[in-house]
Amino acid sequence: MIANSMKPFLAGSSVIRAMFEEGKRMAKVYGPENVYDFSVGNPGLNPPQEVFDAIDYINHEMDPHDVHSYPSNAGYESTRTAVANDLNKRFGADYTFENIVMTVGAGSAINIIMKCLFDPGDKQIVFAPYFVEYANWARNYGAETLVVPPNEAGGFEPNAEELKKLLCPEVKAVIINNPNNPTGAIYSEESIKAVAEVLKEAEKEYGHPIYIIADEPYRELVYTDAKVAYIPDLYDNTLIAYSWSKSLSMPGDRIGYVAVPPKSDEAEEMCGALVVANRVCGDTNAPNIPQLIVERCIDARADLGYYKKNAADLYEIVHGAGFEAIYPQGAFYLWIKSPVENEKDFVAAAKDERILIVPGSSFASPGWVRASFCISNETIQRSKESWEVLGKKYFG
Amino acid sequence: MIANSMKPFLAGSSVIRAMFEEGKRMAKVYGPENVYDFSVGNPGLNPPQEVFDAIDYINHEMDPHDVHSYPSNAGYESTRTAVANDLNKRFGADYTFENIVMTVGAGSAINIIMKCLFDPGDKQIVFAPYFVEYANWARNYGAETLVVPPNEAGGFEPNAEELKKLLCPEVKAVIINNPNNPTGAIYSEESIKAVAEVLKEAEKEYGHPIYIIADEPYRELVYTDAKVAYIPDLYDNTLIAYSWSKSLSMPGDRIGYVAVPPKSDEAEEMCGALVVANRVCGDTNAPNIPQLIVERCIDARADLGYYKKNAADLYEIVHGAGFEAIYPQGAFYLWIKSPVENEKDFVAAAKDERILIVPGSSFASPGWVRASFCISNETIQRSKESWEVLGKKYFG
Repeated sequence: MIANSMKPFLAGSSVIRAMFEEGKRMAKVYGPENVYDFSVGNPGLNPPQEVFDAIDYINHEMDPHDVHSYPSNAGYESTRTAVANDLNKRFGADYTFENIVMTVGAGSAINIIMKCLFDPGDKQIVFAPYFVEYANWARNYGAETLVVPPNEAGGFEPNAEELKKLLCPEVKAVIINNPNNPTGAIYSEESIKAVAEVLKEAEKEYGHPIYIIADEPYRELVYTDAKVAYIPDLYDNTLIAYSWSKSLSMPGDRIGYVAVPPKSDEAEEMCGALVVANRVCGDTNAPNIPQLIVERCIDARADLGYYKKNAADLYEIVHGAGFEAIYPQGAFYLWIKSPVENEKDFVAAAKDERILIVPGSSFASPGWVRASFCISNETIQRSKESWEVLGKKYFG
Repeated sequence: MIANSMKPFLAGSSVIRAMFEEGKRMAKVYGPENVYDFSVGNPGLNPPQEVFDAIDYINHEMDPHDVHSYPSNAGYESTRTAVANDLNKRFGADYTFENIVMTVGAGSAINIIMKCLFDPGDKQIVFAPYFVEYANWARNYGAETLVVPPNEAGGFEPNAEELKKLLCPEVKAVIINNPNNPTGAIYSEESIKAVAEVLKEAEKEYGHPIYIIADEPYRELVYTDAKVAYIPDLYDNTLIAYSWSKSLSMPGDRIGYVAVPPKSDEAEEMCGALVVANRVCGDTNAPNIPQLIVERCIDARADLGYYKKNAADLYEIVHGAGFEAIYPQGAFYLWIKSPVENEKDFVAAAKDERILIVPGSSFASPGWVRASFCISNETIQRSKESWEVLGKKYFG
């Protein structure tokens, strides 16, 4: 009775659920302070004070009808204007409110982009390691996902040469998630330029646009002097999907946007289609209060320095215990090389030390694991002994 | 470059946009107070005081991490428990929180239901007149919509005999929207029972469940002593899609749920699938603050008596001007018979008198028009003269 097309999702979901239940079981047995859960991506920070002040303003100073009735399907003009102005200021861009469509987080932003781009039989390309929902979402619209293999030798940067091998006329989009989940890498401008060159050639050859979907919820989470490229400067047909889940630490509020660069192909038509897709995909509009919050908090950030310390401390502990890991430039993930070929064995061994991490095969990159450091610094500090015990198992 | 599958939506949308632009143009020419816009379904009421108090509580008394971080994809357990208890109290049902999945409004609720029910090639049945998005949403999942013709002779009640003629093994769902948009009818228990009997037979014959999707955002908007049937009492395989957009007058906040009656087929599996669909369709979870609002406002209602007066006054004005109309039992729509065969001519003539109404063909029911009365009573009163002039055109 449940649709066959839903069944693969249910199987995958039960694995995650089993892990979640196991975490709860362990917390009961060992005490929650003795379980080091690096598996989740739920920010431990609170939103900045500006968010609470904005809610008070919205609830007491605004016309209730403006706050609670339907805005346009695209969102409030005032919110979209604030976003456009912010992007123009930061990136020298030339957006107006009409280039911005407010969405229910980045997930929904990517879904309405896909609804507008894909017909059944179309394809998208992702770079491994990648967030598994990308393929699930594309399947909603009948599109298949081709995977560029993980570029381990090149620091997991997107590999333009490998991308080229996968291109075919059915490809309508390529997803770039930068800063990256799960590797914590910030892609070099050089790599992205190389990807752009390959795509420009392919656009000419096939005679239709190939969009880069720039998934950028981690844009502001940067811990080194690496610069996060503004992709529309390198490639016209870019659609940006953004979420405030991380920068304002309010993922449960579900607020994001799609930005359509004015110089992208038929930008006006695309904006119109995205607005309609917001309705046709069932969301109607992004929730009002979060729209009005972000409008008032466009310059605010959660205390992101907290993650910088977590990044340094967790890297030091894990590296100090003997493991090879990539120092996180951004996002909030430490990407660790498994000391044994099958990283699932490593995940199991870590669990014996009450360390919960996610196998790289969940991101199409076996041989590595992901440790999320959006948890408390105290938990990271307390995990040190367990990492050391784990390291001794492998490195003596 | 925009997917072919999006193009039919864009055409439809430009008609609505044209109407919206025309309304704005008329407001400029004649003054907004002299344009009587009965075309929109955007509630003019403010939410009740309880909503504002709840927001203060959420913003100042709750743990910010509970308010702003990810809840379960199904929503807060506390919110789902409040919904389950409320349904149990009002309908003698036996829900637990596990039967409730919080969603981004009723639109998203119906979309995740469809994602769980439909494989490409499946079908659903709707009763005309019906909300056009039902067919658009089903198409998202590759399902076709079969339409039971409008039952004009039977007061636009669902016609079980006509339903029977359309049933075939591919039909996985039948949508019942009660109280009804656009007719304002509350379906009799007798009609729904007859539908249930036909579906029970078909379930046996085809050997699989056929779900009634009960779309009930207008459940509390009732102006006569008609009773809104609780469909799971009449038919086990019912999935309820609800939204607080109307009862709390907060449509922009996007908050609703799916309720899965425990006695429906494999209810537990269905609940699990709906939760996964919330994620796979891109929403992840219903927005947090609205979830926490409705949990605290489960017994609150906007001033719905206001609509009762609007229903009576608009009916009197329109009927007094010579038009045949169905007295609204619920929702906030007056369903008016066009005095000429092509109701689009009537809509155009009404526009000449600065009255904006929606042609019935937008709901697959030509020959009728919809006038929404969720606007101010003053606008309704001011429109009287225009309705009278319009009436004289047709009835002398």
